[in-house]
Amino acid sequence: MLVPRFFPFIAFIIFSMACVAQHPSLMLSQKNLAEVVRGIGQYPLLKKSFSSVKDLADEAVKNPINVPVPKDGGGGFTHEQHKRNYQYILACGTAYQITKEKKYAEFVRRILINYASQYETWPLHPQQRSSNPAGKIFWQNLNDCVWQVYVIQGYDLVYNYLNVADRNSIEQHLFIPVVKFLMEDNKETFDRIHNHGTWDVAAVGMTGYIINKKDWVEKALKGSKKDNTSGFLAQINQLFSPDGYYTEGPYYQRYALLPFLLFAKAINQYDPQLKIFNYGNGVLKKAIHTALQMTYTNGAFFPINDALKDKTFESEELIYGVDLAYGDISTDRDLLDIAQKQDRVIISDAGLKVAKEIAAGKSKPFVYKTLWVSDGDKGDEGGLGILRSGDNNDQQCVLLKASAQGMGHGHFDRLNLLYYDNGSEIFSDYGSARFLNIETKSGGEYLPENKSWAKQTIAHNTVVVDQVSDFKGELNKAEANHPQLIYFNSSNDLKVVSAEENNAFEGVQMTRTIVLANLKELEKPMVIDVFKIRSNKEHQYDLPYWYQGHITNSPFKIQPNTKKLEPLGPDFGYQHIWLNATGSSETGNASVTVLNNQRFYTTTFLTDSSTRVKFVTLGANDPNFNLRNEKGFIVSQPKAKNHLFISLVESHGNTNPIAETTVASTARVHSLKLLTDNDEVSSFQFMLQNKTYTITINYNIKQAFITLQ
Amino acid sequence: MLVPRFFPFIAFIIFSMACVAQHPSLMLSQKNLAEVVRGIGQYPLLKKSFSSVKDLADEAVKNPINVPVPKDGGGGFTHEQHKRNYQYILACGTAYQITKEKKYAEFVRRILINYASQYETWPLHPQQRSSNPAGKIFWQNLNDCVWQVYVIQGYDLVYNYLNVADRNSIEQHLFIPVVKFLMEDNKETFDRIHNHGTWDVAAVGMTGYIINKKDWVEKALKGSKKDNTSGFLAQINQLFSPDGYYTEGPYYQRYALLPFLLFAKAINQYDPQLKIFNYGNGVLKKAIHTALQMTYTNGAFFPINDALKDKTFESEELIYGVDLAYGDISTDRDLLDIAQKQDRVIISDAGLKVAKEIAAGKSKPFVYKTLWVSDGDKGDEGGLGILRSGDNNDQQCVLLKASAQGMGHGHFDRLNLLYYDNGSEIFSDYGSARFLNIETKSGGEYLPENKSWAKQTIAHNTVVVDQVSDFKGELNKAEANHPQLIYFNSSNDLKVVSAEENNAFEGVQMTRTIVLANLKELEKPMVIDVFKIRSNKEHQYDLPYWYQGHITNSPFKIQPNTKKLEPLGPDFGYQHIWLNATGSSETGNASVTVLNNQRFYTTTFLTDSSTRVKFVTLGANDPNFNLRNEKGFIVSQPKAKNHLFISLVESHGNTNPIAETTVASTARVHSLKLLTDNDEVSSFQFMLQNKTYTITINYNIKQAFITLQ
Repeated sequence: MLVPRFFPFIAFIIFSMACVAQHPSLMLSQKNLAEVVRGIGQYPLLKKSFSSVKDLADEAVKNPINVPVPKDGGGGFTHEQHKRNYQYILACGTAYQITKEKKYAEFVRRILINYASQYETWPLHPQQRSSNPAGKIFWQNLNDCVWQVYVIQGYDLVYNYLNVADRNSIEQHLFIPVVKFLMEDNKETFDRIHNHGTWDVAAVGMTGYIINKKDWVEKALKGSKKDNTSGFLAQINQLFSPDGYYTEGPYYQRYALLPFLLFAKAINQYDPQLKIFNYGNGVLKKAIHTALQMTYTNGAFFPINDALKDKTFESEELIYGVDLAYGDISTDRDLLDIAQKQDRVIISDAGLKVAKEIAAGKSKPFVYKTLWVSDGDKGDEGGLGILRSGDNNDQQCVLLKASAQGMGHGHFDRLNLLYYDNGSEIFSDYGSARFLNIETKSGGEYLPENKSWAKQTIAHNTVVVDQVSDFKGELNKAEANHPQLIYFNSSNDLKVVSAEENNAFEGVQMTRTIVLANLKELEKPMVIDVFKIRSNKEHQYDLPYWYQGHITNSPFKIQPNTKKLEPLGPDFGYQHIWLNATGSSETGNASVTVLNNQRFYTTTFLTDSSTRVKFVTLGANDPNFNLRNEKGFIVSQPKAKNHLFISLVESHGNTNPIAETTVASTARVHSLKLLTDNDEVSSFQFMLQNKTYTITINYNIKQAFITLQ
Repeated sequence: MLVPRFFPFIAFIIFSMACVAQHPSLMLSQKNLAEVVRGIGQYPLLKKSFSSVKDLADEAVKNPINVPVPKDGGGGFTHEQHKRNYQYILACGTAYQITKEKKYAEFVRRILINYASQYETWPLHPQQRSSNPAGKIFWQNLNDCVWQVYVIQGYDLVYNYLNVADRNSIEQHLFIPVVKFLMEDNKETFDRIHNHGTWDVAAVGMTGYIINKKDWVEKALKGSKKDNTSGFLAQINQLFSPDGYYTEGPYYQRYALLPFLLFAKAINQYDPQLKIFNYGNGVLKKAIHTALQMTYTNGAFFPINDALKDKTFESEELIYGVDLAYGDISTDRDLLDIAQKQDRVIISDAGLKVAKEIAAGKSKPFVYKTLWVSDGDKGDEGGLGILRSGDNNDQQCVLLKASAQGMGHGHFDRLNLLYYDNGSEIFSDYGSARFLNIETKSGGEYLPENKSWAKQTIAHNTVVVDQVSDFKGELNKAEANHPQLIYFNSSNDLKVVSAEENNAFEGVQMTRTIVLANLKELEKPMVIDVFKIRSNKEHQYDLPYWYQGHITNSPFKIQPNTKKLEPLGPDFGYQHIWLNATGSSETGNASVTVLNNQRFYTTTFLTDSSTRVKFVTLGANDPNFNLRNEKGFIVSQPKAKNHLFISLVESHGNTNPIAETTVASTARVHSLKLLTDNDEVSSFQFMLQNKTYTITINYNIKQAFITLQ
């Protein structure tokens, strides 16, 4: 894996840390301080942002200092207190620089002296688990790294307030032992090419800059052996694709971004000649933009892989990201739109610039794109296909997940589809099974159902073969393979992405083609989903659509299970699904209409006499009420070698319960019919009112991959 | 029932319709027209409101006129078209008066001539149903009345534009036959003391004023026999309680208000000497204010009885209500707050005043109150107890439903409890089972599950005896009885309502006392729910709490049904409930914590060794996917004569998934213990941290009904 893209660059690294002699020196610099103070009086967003920082700082100084001996896991008291403490330290440091009121600096001094008086006596955290290396302050080392990244910024902000004795005491008894713990005791994490590694090197490297330890900085950049087999630069090279995609997916991309950005900013301040933001073809800038492109217009990240669904671009990492991208990298005015939605800037040189230019009316709507985002350090390990249509107030968005596995947090969801419209999820991903920081839910950690349900293929909108997950749910096999992009095109009327996955199920080749098609008979573009399967052996193929909303129409024969529910299967996630009803259609077609956020969505799909449509609800085998009761319908082909799933999804009409009006509650598409399906070509037709459309996909002809007439 | 409260008043009615000779004469009057036109240029809310009226009018004049022969039921094409037509007529009439552009008036002229050319040939609507009297334009007569109420306003607005021949044609061939249909053919509805009757008399009376038919007005006011046994004045007397509560509940109160207000406004314009807004102690004004008091801070009406849950005070009826209340009755400045949230005013004399005073900064926050709203025309048939705490941004609200049955749309939910906090429903009411105007869902009408589920007692947060609903679900028995208020008090620290119901279950006396108590150990007031049952025979008592959110903790022994679900019972709604798990506690206490909208809610309740806690999900016996999959837990006492349910509901902590912080996820209350429970007194204690609180309820002592120490 280790092929740094810009190895020669690294040879020129010269550590010239002396160039920043004064404090503060990181997000907020001595040079710009006076202008930031003026800006707080002038620019509403900066003013408001400082006001909430100051509120936090005031809360900090109001209460007695509390540095408890670490004891509790995530969500527990000591965990939350130490978290609060690092937030207090940064807030007070910032408040001190802006207001010059000594009480804030004094708080930082006193609490750091307190930590310094205890830290060396703390053993490894008592709540440590085998899953992750233990911290001392928190149950996992990762949180200790985060703690240090915040705390060192606070220290930089009050550096000039402290006398030499205090500095010595804090550095000797806190920062040096912390760095020893993070860099030496946890050397494996320090050298890991992984987001935990990034937090670790950022903590060590930033501390190195601030307390002037060149060796730490060098190791943080180039790895403990200083040979670039690990460390920050290797991480930049290997963790992001050339398109700025972080291999674990958007949720962890967001999380991983923060240490990348904070450490990069520190590098840029202390070693500007490294031009770190241009490193690797400017991949950090791309990573920020790509993170934003992996959100829907409601701000939520696509919840693929292990992801908490309520994470949005309003999260702190992206506030740093947007501010630094605009302030330090390039002034793309549509970033200001995101900053306005974030409603907060960092009290920093970059935040000043953002707030100032928003106040000057320079913001323009964020430009969401139809794009292919490649995965893999060389960009050849599949990726995400994102098709969009409509403006930011009412946008359709379809995602094809054809990226690589993404390490341990990856889901077994090759060729998964997500669909958004009208500000809402229509076909959704469960995300992870986790209640973050809620102690009564497995200590706030990933729940057992994350593995037994959320990671399994059936939890996603993609084909399951013989009721067994991709790669039988085995991570190492999944890591060894990735899907391939077949075709991507974005024209106004026909946006297309097609990708294949030939390793997830032995002897089964799968190609999914997703189209967002502008058809003049329809008010909104139609989603065309063509899932082609080739196999020499007979299999059961299940294609679930997990929908949000309520079914308003399903006009075909349905046998409901009204008096008893049983799980759909024994394992691979099927054990968590209740089977509510089974439908069949003799007409060659069936459709399901769902009402969601006052709009209707009809999925019309191909059937034959053996097709079964299974209406299901999540929740079986869930003794601790850990699962949400999501609903889906599964188009199931019980016995086939080759098979073609075709689904047409129409967004139509609306209902307004306040005005009591309903428009176009039934779909217009009908008479879907398969024409051809062989190794090279799939062709089918459907009708809209009286017009017949024929779609042909030529899998091997790039120049005429798809035709619609 | 017929005891007009202000009979002498009626004797002075003098019909002096001549006093308004000019048109327009209703919501928008000739006298104020010039000022309204000026106001549209000046006041943002009026400008914006007119802009959307004009958009609708422009849409109307742009397309060909379409007056289809009535054919379809609710949500179908002809239904929606005729609905659109009356909205077009009113919008074009308004646009004509404001802009004086003839195209708008000409549209109204042409479409009314078109209706006049067809109306007399239309038979009763082909989609008529036995449940409601048929209309001619719509499937039910009710919608025909609504149509006429809108259309006559449009006619008034273009009256001066029309020549005598057009007026004759429209009056002779449309309005006179329409009134004949509504007043004579549907005499029963016309004389009914019911919201359908109100729409009918409003349609007839308003038409009478505008086309100068004194006889119609008199019948509309005093009933077809002109003896005040029916008609508008009798409706005012009998349909509203002295507190302005409409007996069917908030959802229908909203709906019923509109014809009351529109007709009252017409009466006030043509017969100002009647002082109709003061009639019956000003009950119409009270009805508007009470309607607003029956909303939560998110604007949603309490969804008791048959109610669509997404109805808010933004609905058109309340826009009329707020504008008229402020414009014609009394200038309560907190109404302007509601008008701002409605974000629309009626283009009218009243709307002008509202928009003008909002622009002048006169708005102040709407004053939500803790209050008892009596039901019954004399105010002695039970009512609603509403307890509130906190400001409009974060308000706790508890409702005790102890009103009378409320006719055919009433639910069998005596002593039901609803609980709101933090902008969200916590313990919720299902509302009605209906997808309004969605044809594929039983033609948009009430679904079969409305009767089999939504109306049944178990669908509500109140006690069910022996798995049978209140009054065995029989309407006439339920109509004959009502609960009684026992005690109501609103102090800052202890808000209390207590009511009894002794007829719902034979031989069972039930008293529910709900308290919202400020306790200094807690961040938010605690809800204390004491449900006392007295009986000589043994029964099963089930107390369900239908919650919104996700269970995060239930620390007692729970036997989950992980591999098979079955319905909880055979009928009275139990057939729709899946039993997910059954819990029991030997400690005398149990608690369930739910996370909802980032806040935690813990319900701690009394148990003994026979108590079972049933965790349930709605959805059994639902072959057409008509039910939402709501969740609840039922505290079930399998065999008891007397029994006391005590539940303490604590709102605590929060979780912020964006900032990744969690605070106070576990409850502080513990050690709940019963001390005494006899006919006169119930007493119990609980602990908060180390403090013991003792609560005593003296049911027969008004002066010391409840003590807390």
